[in-house]
Amino acid sequence: MIRGYVSVDLGGTNIACAVADEAMNLLGESKTPTESHLGPEGVLERIVTAVEELCRENEIEPCGIGLGVPGLADLSSGKTLFLPNLPTQWRQVPVTAPLGERLGCPVSLLNDARMAALGELVFGAGKGDENLTFAFFTIGTGIGGGIAIDGKLRLGPLGAAAELGHQTIDPDGPLCGCGNRGCLEAVASGTALVGKGAWLVRSGRASRLRELCEGDLNRITPFLMVDAAAEGDDAVGDVIREAGEAIGIGVANVATVLHPELVVLGGGVAKMGDLLLRHVRETVDRRVGMFPPETVRIETSVLGEMAGTWGGLALARNPELAKP
Amino acid sequence: MIRGYVSVDLGGTNIACAVADEAMNLLGESKTPTESHLGPEGVLERIVTAVEELCRENEIEPCGIGLGVPGLADLSSGKTLFLPNLPTQWRQVPVTAPLGERLGCPVSLLNDARMAALGELVFGAGKGDENLTFAFFTIGTGIGGGIAIDGKLRLGPLGAAAELGHQTIDPDGPLCGCGNRGCLEAVASGTALVGKGAWLVRSGRASRLRELCEGDLNRITPFLMVDAAAEGDDAVGDVIREAGEAIGIGVANVATVLHPELVVLGGGVAKMGDLLLRHVRETVDRRVGMFPPETVRIETSVLGEMAGTWGGLALARNPELAKP
Repeated sequence: MIRGYVSVDLGGTNIACAVADEAMNLLGESKTPTESHLGPEGVLERIVTAVEELCRENEIEPCGIGLGVPGLADLSSGKTLFLPNLPTQWRQVPVTAPLGERLGCPVSLLNDARMAALGELVFGAGKGDENLTFAFFTIGTGIGGGIAIDGKLRLGPLGAAAELGHQTIDPDGPLCGCGNRGCLEAVASGTALVGKGAWLVRSGRASRLRELCEGDLNRITPFLMVDAAAEGDDAVGDVIREAGEAIGIGVANVATVLHPELVVLGGGVAKMGDLLLRHVRETVDRRVGMFPPETVRIETSVLGEMAGTWGGLALARNPELAKP
Repeated sequence: MIRGYVSVDLGGTNIACAVADEAMNLLGESKTPTESHLGPEGVLERIVTAVEELCRENEIEPCGIGLGVPGLADLSSGKTLFLPNLPTQWRQVPVTAPLGERLGCPVSLLNDARMAALGELVFGAGKGDENLTFAFFTIGTGIGGGIAIDGKLRLGPLGAAAELGHQTIDPDGPLCGCGNRGCLEAVASGTALVGKGAWLVRSGRASRLRELCEGDLNRITPFLMVDAAAEGDDAVGDVIREAGEAIGIGVANVATVLHPELVVLGGGVAKMGDLLLRHVRETVDRRVGMFPPETVRIETSVLGEMAGTWGGLALARNPELAKP
C-alpha cells in the first residue's frame, strides 16, 4: 500500500472516480451508476464502495479526496445545497464529514464545473502559470464555469461564483432552469442546440439533419448538427452560428469585467470545432471594445473530459485550493 | 511646510485637484478648466500649475500624487493610451514621468472610474473590510466601473479590467462609442437617458417633461426626468424603468460571475433615487438564480462626487494599490 489521492465526480448518471499516487501519476479510474433513486444515504454508500474498490485494486491508501458535485454546496460546512439533476432530498446534506469518516481521510468539496476549472488551471491550459487569471466555460448539457484570479480560484462565500452559464445574454430570451430568462445556458448549451435542431426538423426546415438522424429526433446531437451544417443545411448552420455568437457575448462580457489572459472553452460543445468556435472568436473581437481583444487568448480545453478528474486530484492534494 | 498627498482627476472639462496631510485630513481642493485644445503638453503644464498652487496655498510638500485619467492608460509605463473625451494626440503620451519630474514626487496612474472605485473601497462603502470583494458602477455621462477581489483592485494587464459599462446587455441594442452594440453604457447612461427623454418630447409623448424643460431639450437632465415621471409622465417613467432594468442586468451578471459581497452604484444617475433603484434591485432579484440574491448588498456610493478624490489620495499614499 502506498499513499495516494482520489477524485470523485458525482453526476446525475454516474460517479466517476480516479486515483493517483503522491507524484500525481494517474493509476486507475472507475465509473459507477449513481442510482440517484437511492437518495443521499444510498448514493454516499455507493461512493464509499467505489472509492474503496478503486483504492484496493490500485493498492492505495487514500490521504485526500476531492469531491465534485453537480450544483451548489456550502464549501465551509461541507454540505450540498441544491443539486438540480439529483432529487430534492440533497438540500442541506452533509457529505464531506460522513465520507471522510468512512474513508479515513479529508474530503474537500467543489462544484463540478469549478473542479474542472481547477484541473485545467493546474494541469491543463493554465499549467505552469501560478498567477494566471482565466475563465473556464464548460459547455455541455448545461453551461458551467470557473474563474481564477491571479492563480486563485474565485469561489465566493457559497462556492457559487463563476456561474458563467447564468449570465443574461438575451433579456427576452428563453426561460432557464434557474428561473431567469435568456441565460447563456438557455440559449447555447448542448440541450438548447439539440432542442433547436429538433424543432427545425419538426418544422420541415432542416432536410439534411432529418436524413442524418433518420427521422429520429432523439438521435440529434450537437455533432450531428455540425455534420448537417457542413453538408449544406443552412438552417442548422444558422442555429450553430447563433449559439457561437451567444457564447461569444458571454466570453466578451467576462473579458470586459476581468480582462483575463486566457479563456478556456471545455465540455462537449466546445469540441464542435471551428464551425462554432469561429463565431465565438468573431463575436469577442467585435464586442470587446475597451482593450485589444487579442490580449485575451481563447483556447479549447487541454484536458477535455479529464478536467474534472484532474481538478479532483489537485483538490485532494491541496484542500486550500477550495477555500471560499 | 508639511508632507502631504495630492489627488488629480483629469476630466474632459476640468482638472480637479485635492490635497491632504499625511493623516489623510483633506486640506483643500481646486478646479481648473482642462483646456484640452492646448494638447497634452499644455494640459500637463496646467496640471503642474494647479498642483503647485494648491500645495503652496496649503503649505504642503507633495510626497505622492494619484492621477486619474478618463480612459485607458498603460499603468506600467505611465502612458495614456486612449482618452475618448480628449483629443487624439493623447495616444501613447507619457504622463507619470514628466509630472513626477516637475513636481518632485512619484505619480501613480489609474483610470478615473477605477480611482473612484478605490476611493469607495478604502474610504467609502468598503471602509474597514480589508478582504472585500465588490463591484463599483459609476453611472454618469458614461458608465465606468471598478472591481476589488479580496480587497485588491482588479486592473488587468492594461488597467482596463472592470469596464462594467461595456458589457453587452442587449445584443441588438444601440451602438456604443466603443464600437460595440448594446453596451450597458449605450442603453442606460445619463446620456442615453437624456437622449430618450428628448426623443419622447420631440415625438409628443412626454407632455409633463416638455412643460418642465419649457420646450428646451437642452434642459433635460436625468433628474428632470425623475420629476416628470413622479408627476405622472408615464412614457418617461417607462424609460427610467428600462434603464433600471438594464443596470440591473449589468449588476446581476457581475454578481453571477463574481458573487461579490457588495455592489456600489455611484455617479450622478445613481442619485436619481428609488424610482430608478427599485428596478435595479428587482431585476437583480429576478435574474440572479444560482445563489440567494440577498447575499449581494446593493448600495449607493457613500462618497458621491468625492469618490475619485479620495481614490486619488489613497493611490498617492500607496502606489501599490494600482499595480496591474
